[in-house]
Amino acid sequence: MASRASARTSAAESATAAPAASVPPASVPAAAPAAGPAGSAASAAPGAGAGDVLGAYLHTEAAEFLRSLRVHGESAGSPEAVADAAAAVRQLRRSARRMSGALHTYRTLVDTGWADQLRTELGWLSGTLAREYAYAARLDRLLSALHRLASDGSAIGGGAGGAVGGSTGIGSGGTGGAAVSGAPSAKGGALPVGAARAGALLERQLTLARTRAHSAALQALGSSRFHAVADAVAVLASEAPITPDTDGRPAEEVLPPLAEAAHRRLNEAVDILPLARAEHPYNAEALSRSLAAEVQGDAAWHQVRLLLRLHRYAQEVLLRGTGAAADPDADQRLGPASRALDRHRDAAEAAAAAASAARTPRIAPATAYALGVLHADQRHEVEAARFAFGRLWTARTTETRTTETRTAETRTAETTRRAERGGTR
Amino acid sequence: MASRASARTSAAESATAAPAASVPPASVPAAAPAAGPAGSAASAAPGAGAGDVLGAYLHTEAAEFLRSLRVHGESAGSPEAVADAAAAVRQLRRSARRMSGALHTYRTLVDTGWADQLRTELGWLSGTLAREYAYAARLDRLLSALHRLASDGSAIGGGAGGAVGGSTGIGSGGTGGAAVSGAPSAKGGALPVGAARAGALLERQLTLARTRAHSAALQALGSSRFHAVADAVAVLASEAPITPDTDGRPAEEVLPPLAEAAHRRLNEAVDILPLARAEHPYNAEALSRSLAAEVQGDAAWHQVRLLLRLHRYAQEVLLRGTGAAADPDADQRLGPASRALDRHRDAAEAAAAAASAARTPRIAPATAYALGVLHADQRHEVEAARFAFGRLWTARTTETRTTETRTAETRTAETTRRAERGGTR
Repeated sequence: MASRASARTSAAESATAAPAASVPPASVPAAAPAAGPAGSAASAAPGAGAGDVLGAYLHTEAAEFLRSLRVHGESAGSPEAVADAAAAVRQLRRSARRMSGALHTYRTLVDTGWADQLRTELGWLSGTLAREYAYAARLDRLLSALHRLASDGSAIGGGAGGAVGGSTGIGSGGTGGAAVSGAPSAKGGALPVGAARAGALLERQLTLARTRAHSAALQALGSSRFHAVADAVAVLASEAPITPDTDGRPAEEVLPPLAEAAHRRLNEAVDILPLARAEHPYNAEALSRSLAAEVQGDAAWHQVRLLLRLHRYAQEVLLRGTGAAADPDADQRLGPASRALDRHRDAAEAAAAAASAARTPRIAPATAYALGVLHADQRHEVEAARFAFGRLWTARTTETRTTETRTAETRTAETTRRAERGGTR
Repeated sequence: MASRASARTSAAESATAAPAASVPPASVPAAAPAAGPAGSAASAAPGAGAGDVLGAYLHTEAAEFLRSLRVHGESAGSPEAVADAAAAVRQLRRSARRMSGALHTYRTLVDTGWADQLRTELGWLSGTLAREYAYAARLDRLLSALHRLASDGSAIGGGAGGAVGGSTGIGSGGTGGAAVSGAPSAKGGALPVGAARAGALLERQLTLARTRAHSAALQALGSSRFHAVADAVAVLASEAPITPDTDGRPAEEVLPPLAEAAHRRLNEAVDILPLARAEHPYNAEALSRSLAAEVQGDAAWHQVRLLLRLHRYAQEVLLRGTGAAADPDADQRLGPASRALDRHRDAAEAAAAAASAARTPRIAPATAYALGVLHADQRHEVEAARFAFGRLWTARTTETRTTETRTAETRTAETTRRAERGGTR
């Protein structure tokens, strides 16, 4: 591990060194002290050109990306700074998503070949770095669920509210396994014994996957492909390759139609969702198909998740650049809907992991049984997330926000049982 | 089987012969032509005595009980009349519940020792005859659920509404198994294979239990204990043993306080239910404990189911006797709530059967996995039934029935996914 850690440190060092070398030195330090992208970013004055607005947005996010990369490089080597490294990856992905989203929605304003190439590479880097954290989060989610399923009434009885509201964050993955092993009691029937074994099996499988993902991330950070991405982002931090014929055209004229197109794509994708069914509680939609059909049925929701994100970032560009988004307070209202779809994705992936673990050869029937319960439980979460999204979406699109839908929203907010990992996804 | 069937016929014959012998012959034929208990039953005139009102109710139900017993005896022997026999048992239980309920609520008006004894015996007979049908219904419920879980999207995709609304009745138990075995396809992952095996396992176990219950019912019908119950009901059909000091006191004075006490017991039992949580969809309450805790948590709901039934029958006595129930249109409003709790009980018992099947030694992990999914699915139904009951109950007790709760009721009615077995449970 020591050699691996040092290898990682040097890779990270070279990673942060690379962009610094290829970027005008003044540019990065100027952007780095900015508190955050939502803060006092370099926003264009009203009446600014479309290219300037997009360029400023990309500049801010690129600088943030490079700053996160530097923090990650500094913290990745030391075991004490694991949380810092995780936060840096989260921030890096946050910026990468925004750059990628802006380049997608406002694609016609930039060199499209270059933009598409950068988007692919940003996706690769972001995904590679995130994978180990995703496995950790999945394991934590599954162990928490097993603990909840396997504990007997006496453990939870005292705080009925806590059973729903309380959820361990991503950090407690290590203790979750111990809690599951400690919980089983003989009187609980088949589940507790199987739950302990299922927990151990999942821990083994997901920890292995996590370790592999960690190695892959280290390899990626030392690759020439990585250096090329960092260089490209550094270019973006100094000057975005805006197409010449965009320069000078006012932002108010050029940007809103493009943002509107992103909004329309989102609405079209939502329209084909079975929202009416999703809003009807206990529709058993998420668990009413075979595994293959489950994956198939989830795809439309995952697509909406991505389009909702693109819509949010398109609005961010407008808001930062012109001070007025076409969809006012879009971010504030769409945040909960976005988080519901994040939960949807997490639960769907956790359910798939449980199903995959159940296909391990030679496991005990009790283990398989517990994994079956766990699978159904996570699909139940999928259904709950769809329900939450449906209520939020309907409340949002309904012109007259009646008291009823307000109540529904409050309830749906309560439904957010899982602590969200990072507030600003 | 032939010897068994003939044994049953003779037992049934002697069964129906017994009460006829011990009852004044005029009494039974007089009551038998009555269309149904809810029809133009022998209702006391306004201003009637409390004893007369209770006596008339018991008389009607006892006659109906004896009539059902006769139909059962006539149909039980022939394979063509299986449906008739099932209907007769349903009607017999319906009357037995009403007699037993009336004797419980208005216990102080009759010879209490005799009433308590009769209630015990009615419960025994009703339970013994019903058991084989309960196993058949449970198997049907579980096979339907497995079919729903294991079928791939293409089978259901055409009619999304049908997946929820459509449910096979109790009669399709035989075809359910074939449907499960036919459904699995290779692309569905672990579930379809396991689902087919789980279906076969459940079919084996529950069919065995059903056969045993059938034998036990035949034995019971030939027992002296059965003849004693039939005799006692025949006595009730001629004249209920009302205590002397009740005779002559007006029904309006004596009955409502007793009915009110039944209502109060119901309300007290509902008060300790976690209704606020149940009304919050996707609370994961029903599946958030170990098996032992699940059974424990269900008990309070089962208790409410029984008390709700007692309340309904107490109101029926008032309504038939005095033409005015203390709780107007109680039956109409409480019927859906009652059926929600029936569904709650059925789903809870089905979940327990799945869990029990999973403890069969040497089953394949895939089978155990499917049973785990099935268990969780049925606990999900338990939760849905609690949700439905909670919405109905709150709508009922809310003085101002706002539009919101009306909507909620409509939705909850839609939630009734399972075809109810017999409308008048």
